Amino acid sequence: MKHFYVINGPNLNLTGNRETHIYGTTTLSQLAEQLRQEFTNSAQLEFFQNNHEGNLIDYLQSLTQKDGIVINPGALSHTSIALRDALVASQIPAIEVHISNIFKREQFRHHSYISSVCIGSIFGLGINGYKLAVQALLMRG
Amino acid sequence: MKHFYVINGPNLNLTGNRETHIYGTTTLSQLAEQLRQEFTNSAQLEFFQNNHEGNLIDYLQSLTQKDGIVINPGALSHTSIALRDALVASQIPAIEVHISNIFKREQFRHHSYISSVCIGSIFGLGINGYKLAVQALLMRG
Amino acid sequence: MKHFYVINGPNLNLTGNRETHIYGTTTLSQLAEQLRQEFTNSAQLEFFQNNHEGNLIDYLQSLTQKDGIVINPGALSHTSIALRDALVASQIPAIEVHISNIFKREQFRHHSYISSVCIGSIFGLGINGYKLAVQALLMRG
Amino acid sequence: MKHFYVINGPNLNLTGNRETHIYGTTTLSQLAEQLRQEFTNSAQLEFFQNNHEGNLIDYLQSLTQKDGIVINPGALSHTSIALRDALVASQIPAIEVHISNIFKREQFRHHSYISSVCIGSIFGLGINGYKLAVQALLMRG
Amino acid sequence: MKHFYVINGPNLNLTGNRETHIYGTTTLSQLAEQLRQEFTNSAQLEFFQNNHEGNLIDYLQSLTQKDGIVINPGALSHTSIALRDALVASQIPAIEVHISNIFKREQFRHHSYISSVCIGSIFGLGINGYKLAVQALLMRG
Amino acid sequence: MKHFYVINGPNLNLTGNRETHIYGTTTLSQLAEQLRQEFTNSAQLEFFQNNHEGNLIDYLQSLTQKDGIVINPGALSHTSIALRDALVASQIPAIEVHISNIFKREQFRHHSYISSVCIGSIFGLGINGYKLAVQALLMRG
Amino acid sequence: MKHFYVINGPNLNLTGNRETHIYGTTTLSQLAEQLRQEFTNSAQLEFFQNNHEGNLIDYLQSLTQKDGIVINPGALSHTSIALRDALVASQIPAIEVHISNIFKREQFRHHSYISSVCIGSIFGLGINGYKLAVQALLMRG
Amino acid sequence: MKHFYVINGPNLNLTGNRETHIYGTTTLSQLAEQLRQEFTNSAQLEFFQNNHEGNLIDYLQSLTQKDGIVINPGALSHTSIALRDALVASQIPAIEVHISNIFKREQFRHHSYISSVCIGSIFGLGINGYKLAVQALLMRG
Amino acid sequence: MKHFYVINGPNLNLTGNRETHIYGTTTLSQLAEQLRQEFTNSAQLEFFQNNHEGNLIDYLQSLTQKDGIVINPGALSHTSIALRDALVASQIPAIEVHISNIFKREQFRHHSYISSVCIGSIFGLGINGYKLAVQALLMRG
Amino acid sequence: MKHFYVINGPNLNLTGNRETHIYGTTTLSQLAEQLRQEFTNSAQLEFFQNNHEGNLIDYLQSLTQKDGIVINPGALSHTSIALRDALVASQIPAIEVHISNIFKREQFRHHSYISSVCIGSIFGLGINGYKLAVQALLMRG
Amino acid sequence: MKHFYVINGPNLNLTGNRETHIYGTTTLSQLAEQLRQEFTNSAQLEFFQNNHEGNLIDYLQSLTQKDGIVINPGALSHTSIALRDALVASQIPAIEVHISNIFKREQFRHHSYISSVCIGSIFGLGINGYKLAVQALLMRG
Amino acid sequence: MKHFYVINGPNLNLTGNRETHIYGTTTLSQLAEQLRQEFTNSAQLEFFQNNHEGNLIDYLQSLTQKDGIVINPGALSHTSIALRDALVASQIPAIEVHISNIFKREQFRHHSYISSVCIGSIFGLGINGYKLAVQALLMRG
Repeated sequence: MKHFYVINGPNLNLTGNRETHIYGTTTLSQLAEQLRQEFTNSAQLEFFQNNHEGNLIDYLQSLTQKDGIVINPGALSHTSIALRDALVASQIPAIEVHISNIFKREQFRHHSYISSVCIGSIFGLGINGYKLAVQALLMRG
Repeated sequence: MKHFYVINGPNLNLTGNRETHIYGTTTLSQLAEQLRQEFTNSAQLEFFQNNHEGNLIDYLQSLTQKDGIVINPGALSHTSIALRDALVASQIPAIEVHISNIFKREQFRHHSYISSVCIGSIFGLGINGYKLAVQALLMRG
Repeated sequence: MKHFYVINGPNLNLTGNRETHIYGTTTLSQLAEQLRQEFTNSAQLEFFQNNHEGNLIDYLQSLTQKDGIVINPGALSHTSIALRDALVASQIPAIEVHISNIFKREQFRHHSYISSVCIGSIFGLGINGYKLAVQALLMRG
Repeated sequence: MKHFYVINGPNLNLTGNRETHIYGTTTLSQLAEQLRQEFTNSAQLEFFQNNHEGNLIDYLQSLTQKDGIVINPGALSHTSIALRDALVASQIPAIEVHISNIFKREQFRHHSYISSVCIGSIFGLGINGYKLAVQALLMRG
Repeated sequence: MKHFYVINGPNLNLTGNRETHIYGTTTLSQLAEQLRQEFTNSAQLEFFQNNHEGNLIDYLQSLTQKDGIVINPGALSHTSIALRDALVASQIPAIEVHISNIFKREQFRHHSYISSVCIGSIFGLGINGYKLAVQALLMRG
Repeated sequence: MKHFYVINGPNLNLTGNRETHIYGTTTLSQLAEQLRQEFTNSAQLEFFQNNHEGNLIDYLQSLTQKDGIVINPGALSHTSIALRDALVASQIPAIEVHISNIFKREQFRHHSYISSVCIGSIFGLGINGYKLAVQALLMRG
Repeated sequence: MKHFYVINGPNLNLTGNRETHIYGTTTLSQLAEQLRQEFTNSAQLEFFQNNHEGNLIDYLQSLTQKDGIVINPGALSHTSIALRDALVASQIPAIEVHISNIFKREQFRHHSYISSVCIGSIFGLGINGYKLAVQALLMRG
Repeated sequence: MKHFYVINGPNLNLTGNRETHIYGTTTLSQLAEQLRQEFTNSAQLEFFQNNHEGNLIDYLQSLTQKDGIVINPGALSHTSIALRDALVASQIPAIEVHISNIFKREQFRHHSYISSVCIGSIFGLGINGYKLAVQALLMRG
Repeated sequence: MKHFYVINGPNLNLTGNRETHIYGTTTLSQLAEQLRQEFTNSAQLEFFQNNHEGNLIDYLQSLTQKDGIVINPGALSHTSIALRDALVASQIPAIEVHISNIFKREQFRHHSYISSVCIGSIFGLGINGYKLAVQALLMRG
Repeated sequence: MKHFYVINGPNLNLTGNRETHIYGTTTLSQLAEQLRQEFTNSAQLEFFQNNHEGNLIDYLQSLTQKDGIVINPGALSHTSIALRDALVASQIPAIEVHISNIFKREQFRHHSYISSVCIGSIFGLGINGYKLAVQALLMRG
Repeated sequence: MKHFYVINGPNLNLTGNRETHIYGTTTLSQLAEQLRQEFTNSAQLEFFQNNHEGNLIDYLQSLTQKDGIVINPGALSHTSIALRDALVASQIPAIEVHISNIFKREQFRHHSYISSVCIGSIFGLGINGYKLAVQALLMRG
Repeated sequence: MKHFYVINGPNLNLTGNRETHIYGTTTLSQLAEQLRQEFTNSAQLEFFQNNHEGNLIDYLQSLTQKDGIVINPGALSHTSIALRDALVASQIPAIEVHISNIFKREQFRHHSYISSVCIGSIFGLGINGYKLAVQALLMRG
């Protein structure tokens, strides 16, 4: 059984409540519940959300399992090289998820410092993106 | 039961044979077979690959089912506005797939004219990307 | 009596059916009919539409009359230098038409490789643009 | 019967006399005469030319008829946001005309602040552009 | 005896007839004849010209000999990543030729997507460039 | 008692009548009235509006009081270095006001040649911006 | 009576002590005192300053009153999209304040991610800017 | 005896009074007096200064002598294409003068639309620049 | 005896363990030990490392000794203007150190917001850079 | 009596012989002769021309008179920061001369590293530019 | 019999010894020997290599034969406008050669100031490029 | 005992005499003396300064010891690819030194072609930078 981390960055704790036309109405804890049920036999999922770049870096440095990460860094994707470096240093294969289609939004959301240090990325598929990312990690065997 | 189109652009007919360190060793017809088996109960899949921008546009114009498209436009992602327009004109929800992580490659592959007219995109997850994209279409109900 | 070619590029065969808020509801064949009637005494009009850059180039190379071209290259305006070269090679005076006002749309539609090798251009005046273009060719005597 | 304004910006009073290889030999008053004759039954045409951005703005603010404007802002097209704002504020549908093909000239003439607030534009068709623009306004009904 | 492909892209079938001040007066078939004679003892030359990006890609995919390619992609050099990918996928050593000196022409002709995936390039030496390219392939042994 | 100039550039005479969703419904003369009442005991206000860059420069050169300027240069903010120079030459402390939030509008409105030669700026607070600017000048003592 | 938040970002706790030629000599607590006295009858003011982007985001997420925010994000204005997103998510009308005139300083201070999601902004008017911002919020009624 | 025009643009009427560390202390009328004396035997000098782009254009259009122009367009150098066009239309050889060294000043003063349509330019040599420009015109014979 | 602060930013706590081909195998605490021994007679060294921008700012604000700072801001060099401002506000002479040669790495590491507010910088000399930086501070006397 | 250096950079020894439509037919030694005669009573002129950046720098370092320099650095204007530094180090007031109007030529000739460290510049006035530059130095007294 | 110059710029004297994976193992003198033998009946070849831009310019100025130049300016291709000017001034037809494929290397090697003033260029074909260039010159007759 | 080269580029022979507020008052020969004394037991130092790019390249090519180089290329850092290539070809580990902090100076000094082919760099630490660089070379063992 695999052990995966599902990490969310700033403002994603508001998912389900803010700008629901963009992010939908499922909350992060409902998502966690859904994912745990879905993958109850195949993966142990550990969730972490934080609004602090520093806490996200500390967390990434503390990880002991190496099976995989699903990470939605929120707006830090576009601005944080430090987060990128922490992800690289973790040496854990990661998949970047964005709930919304960042290419339909402001120009400054079209570039992510994280994408090029992940295996791959899933953008714009709503909170289903998390589920698909976990599946993708499982498919890697 | 849903009806989805799985469309591949230039050079993707070589998948499984060329640059296998980037694209893997599964061929497109093996992929089609796998996907048909995987989704035998939930979706009818129609496959199309072509090296001609014009044929891809003609094909998109001919589609009669509106359930969904999985499209990997290959290198045309980065250069073809005409393909983008044809996709918009089809009014069919689409998900863009790239086998490789385009953000790890040359600068000119970092931008896609297609991404912003799709629901979302899946990059870098190998041929699993196609399977995940079909799942994503199914999840939309 | 003059002989003019009216050439349309990718996706313009959908005119009248797709995105009617942008392109209007007249189809290309209705347009052809209208133009033929309008100019029945002054010009012989030959229509060609194709979604393939290559076919458009082949067609331009095959033209034998030198009186004039009305060309709406669609999205190829923004991406095809090969089409531009074929137009130059034809040595036929041409007027570029776009049905929509390309300057009100995405940034990437603001530049056309075709404009600078035409006599002039008519943008944003709907399908009337074709009629005006034919008139403009006739006015040149 | 429609009432249209035909507005010309800086240096266009020289048309017919300066750089005739670019602008032709018809003067602005000859053009006015031709247009009045041509549209004697369908449109009342009011002409205005001025070399002052401020006068052009004042004039645009003073207009009482809302049927249409044909405007050739000359070099102000490329530099005047104030003129653009005055045109928008007038709420009169407008067509931009340039006598020469601005895309064949210096890079700084390739962008117009006016184009995107007009219905459409006619470039490079000589003084015929004015006539075509009036026709285009009439075609809108 | 070596087997080389000599491939020409859009509009190069017009060579010898169009813009002769740029491209000279030798036609492509005359060139083929000259090259066949010149290298009758050292290389078998197979010629292909097409105006369709898709046909050029299909052709590149169909090649069975691996000795070498001389390719003049015409205007596609500047716009086609798909052609570049097909050339890479062929795994055949290639030399890019342009008849004219692309650096003396418009800015958009100064960059080629093809150059960096070829062994080398020969620009501006007229149709002699093809002969020199074949020689260069032969010199590689 | 202080003496301040309140200067408005092109099209601001239309305030209250044009694009009221952006600029509100108070006219410039109503604004003048309100400000005069508001500051009746603390400042003498002199109003000037003009659509001509030249007149604005002439006016700035004619000013004899040195207490302060509130200036909304309208669209000239983005294009007029001459106005900037006249403001600098006046040696009068100035505050730039824009009724609308220029950062929510077109890219070309995001830069002002005036801002960096003023004490400060007030953007997007409607016509209240003028009142606040006068207060700010008074606060400077 | 309105309830407003006055939020200050990194290094603004040093106001009054550091670079006094830029920021003046009033400290943030003196400012708070002044503002509370000034608006004792019209608004309840809640002050928050923090050097941590994460704490600023947490704070914005915790706000329960919706009347208004005065925010000086300091240097985070230029770099933090996450802060912008938190401000948008709060759905509280906000005014951005900068003590200094950012347009007179380094190029990288000329752009703010915050400005375009605020009602408006007040730059360069010293600590008076805070007072004016509160007034502006009150004026909105 | 030659007839030359000496034309000055916006704010140059302030020369001698404003920013004297940049522009010196000689006024424009003193300069005129000096130049008239200096060239009393060789050239008739006609002076014109105006703060209005439109007046400068009108003036350029009204000129009847073709011997030469000395022009200091002030800040309009950097922003006015209309002035450039009027200068070209006049067909009078011109020399551009700037009192200050524009390359030592703000970036936006480093480019002039006027320079490339003049014979040459003299920058940064103070009001001596005018005298040298007249000499240069005389030297052309 | 001098008192210096040696400050390290995000992920530098991993030095000696992560990407040792870039950063070497000495840990930060080993480094501290080495430096303390090396400078035991000349300088008192105080070490601080943190992954939080906010904590680094708080720390910089708390410093009471003014002799010198050696700072390696890690990835924050490239993104944090707030850190830059805190360093300036401290009024302590600082030297920037990077263990790796940032100019051999990704383009986005080539610019540092910190460099221009330090005395100088030492890049690419491994952990020796810290020792050299302390020496440099001592040499300043 | 003043002592001035007249310094010419690469290829200017060819003046009078090469590209005479740009540079005229007077040779550099003829120019020297003319200038010496012209200024026989007012200035001692020392001429130096060299094609080596290094020799020009060495020469600038060797100068002992501080009255003035006339320098035409030729193509080094656009590329040599070392020459600029040598000129600054000389502490001699200098005027830059270009025989041709660099703003009418290729884009890469529009910028000069030298202009901003000279008093001023004279461009496009042919070899008269040297004479005018000497005069300008003399006028400074 | 033709007389050609074969000119090599900085560091090319190291060919055959440095970075042999890029430049091969043939030295420049071996190359000279090979070329002399190859073209013993058709061309007299004169070789020149120098690391000094100034010496290359001096050499180009000294040439008396006008038949042709083969030039590999090395790194000066990318930085020296003075060399370009000397080549133009020589009025000798030239072909630019680069041993390596400059388009596969760093971005700053992708542009050459020399290419657009040569007849043509041969890149990436190793030292064979020189031989081909001589042939190309001979083919011109 | 190690053998190191200390190489200085254009204008650095003036160190100690020119712009002493930037470069200090120690001359290059005093520096050499100091360094020789400092490292008398550990390293043999060979000094070279030249204002000619070509001489610096020749010198780099002539070096026989491979222990290390300390190089301050002066302004050539920003413009000379040929110098970079010579340094690479030497295969000697090098450290780049700049006396001043190049990031506090003009934009064009912020980029160095040399930095990315050195081990590391030391900027802004005055002439101490040379001493630190020698130490750094010694520390490498």
